[in-house]
Amino acid sequence: MASTSGTGRFALTEVYRARQIVSRYLQPTPLLRSRILSEELGCDLWVKYENCTPIRSFKGRGGIYRASTLGPEIAGMATASTGNHGQGIAWGASVFGKRAVVVAPAGANPFKLAAMRALGAEVIEEGETLAAANDVARANAADQGLLYVEDGEDPDVMLGCATLALEIVEQLPALDDLVVQLGGGNLIGACALVLDHAAPQARLNGVQSDAAPASYQSWKAGEPILSARCDTFAGGVATSYPGHFTFDYWKGSVDEVHLVSDEDLVDAALVMLRATGHLPEGAGAAALAGVLADPDRYRGRTVVVLLSGGNVEPLIWDRLIS
Amino acid sequence: MASTSGTGRFALTEVYRARQIVSRYLQPTPLLRSRILSEELGCDLWVKYENCTPIRSFKGRGGIYRASTLGPEIAGMATASTGNHGQGIAWGASVFGKRAVVVAPAGANPFKLAAMRALGAEVIEEGETLAAANDVARANAADQGLLYVEDGEDPDVMLGCATLALEIVEQLPALDDLVVQLGGGNLIGACALVLDHAAPQARLNGVQSDAAPASYQSWKAGEPILSARCDTFAGGVATSYPGHFTFDYWKGSVDEVHLVSDEDLVDAALVMLRATGHLPEGAGAAALAGVLADPDRYRGRTVVVLLSGGNVEPLIWDRLIS
Repeated sequence: MASTSGTGRFALTEVYRARQIVSRYLQPTPLLRSRILSEELGCDLWVKYENCTPIRSFKGRGGIYRASTLGPEIAGMATASTGNHGQGIAWGASVFGKRAVVVAPAGANPFKLAAMRALGAEVIEEGETLAAANDVARANAADQGLLYVEDGEDPDVMLGCATLALEIVEQLPALDDLVVQLGGGNLIGACALVLDHAAPQARLNGVQSDAAPASYQSWKAGEPILSARCDTFAGGVATSYPGHFTFDYWKGSVDEVHLVSDEDLVDAALVMLRATGHLPEGAGAAALAGVLADPDRYRGRTVVVLLSGGNVEPLIWDRLIS
Repeated sequence: MASTSGTGRFALTEVYRARQIVSRYLQPTPLLRSRILSEELGCDLWVKYENCTPIRSFKGRGGIYRASTLGPEIAGMATASTGNHGQGIAWGASVFGKRAVVVAPAGANPFKLAAMRALGAEVIEEGETLAAANDVARANAADQGLLYVEDGEDPDVMLGCATLALEIVEQLPALDDLVVQLGGGNLIGACALVLDHAAPQARLNGVQSDAAPASYQSWKAGEPILSARCDTFAGGVATSYPGHFTFDYWKGSVDEVHLVSDEDLVDAALVMLRATGHLPEGAGAAALAGVLADPDRYRGRTVVVLLSGGNVEPLIWDRLIS
């Protein structure tokens, strides 16, 4: 990692606290070496399969921990999500007997919306962008006495997510590189927190779609930037700005950010299916897309790529069939 | 289960011994409820994902335990396999520094042969059928001072496999039905052993392809029968007779055997992909095919279907693409 922690930030003890709760509902997900990808890419390539959870993505970790810390005076949470974060919040709320109101912006994956409703969430489809949906969620929270939860701005959501990185480091302490998608920054911030304390030898690499490059631009600039462009098909990385809270965790700790195209994400999803038998959603294919885009960076190293979710978008299904 | 154990058979203590070894190399695989399949089939449907192992099938369990019990005077093992069992033996041998000679009959999946070789096995392609390949393996073992291991006739291979059923029962003690494919009988025999002692309330159901119905016919007859027909594309269930050793464990303990067509296996593989994002090989789709063939049998019950492996045959890839 590029740097170590500043002052006032979380240490691992907070992540252990989160895991004490999260592990009651989620068993560790598989981390497996891919022989085929290792041979093809000239490195020791491991895949962390976060599609192997009840909601088919890593987002249950943050949702469960966030819900677990609500006091009895709080009836529930309101949040905005294109899909997976909303499922995580919905799942956590259902576990702890709380309400979940999820505001989904235009273009959200209909399968993910159905899954949120199946988990008991009240889903409101409103807002042209995730930013607009966040405004609606904030208003709903104020009106209904709910806690407003914003992905990228919430310490407990980040700490729950950090259990993912802790699992990786414990499963493969010798990792040289961790590669994850870069969206609003909650995930990569959580990974930065853990690597900083538990595996400082490892490089942390982000991958973002050039169709929604806000966090890449923010990383380059060293401060959060609002981007005019946010039109990736991959809901998990469709953000027009990074969360401020989590930005502080990752801005100085990320070693490289790969910008790839949406087409690269689709291609990488199909490579993952061929090589491992697992089909990721767009954001879940981003880490592999990053390695495929710059294999020289990873040659001869022990590399973990995150397969963050398997709630596959219609675009990927269409490409698979055609 | 239809009946309980006779005399002289293994109890759980032998399975715990096997797990003490196997768990050093294999973390528990996920057991997850499928919301979509539960809704569509009117039951509480759970999938055990044995594709999430380093060799993408459950066969490492038996291979590792079998290899672990070899004395120093034994240089290795010779066995016959269409693919997954051979990978399991090859993996086990590599872990314990032993040789593995695997004889693969005509029609074995080339991807599985490549995987066996990558694990260090010496692969011999010989024999028109699995039975003929077993003869070749037996001769090789005698010539080279290796232990001949036959899937379905080996207590340690069965005990290693039984760790799978033990995991399921521990993960979901309230299961009403366990559904697994029926090939030579090693797997279902191992499941019978565990359910008999650990979950006698649960029914054990097998699923076999009507293109290789030897074990179904044997179950009906109450004694092992050699079948003239063995031409399923699904290598994991392509056997022309059941193992005698394991037959004793399952012949009286299986509640139902569903006969399905090869086409049903392909269809079920694609249903599994759509519903869970996981693509099984033919034998790995058999359990779901059985439930799809007779949903009334499972309605309202808590059902575990085994996804035994993800080493997908070319036929399934072709159907997926077309």
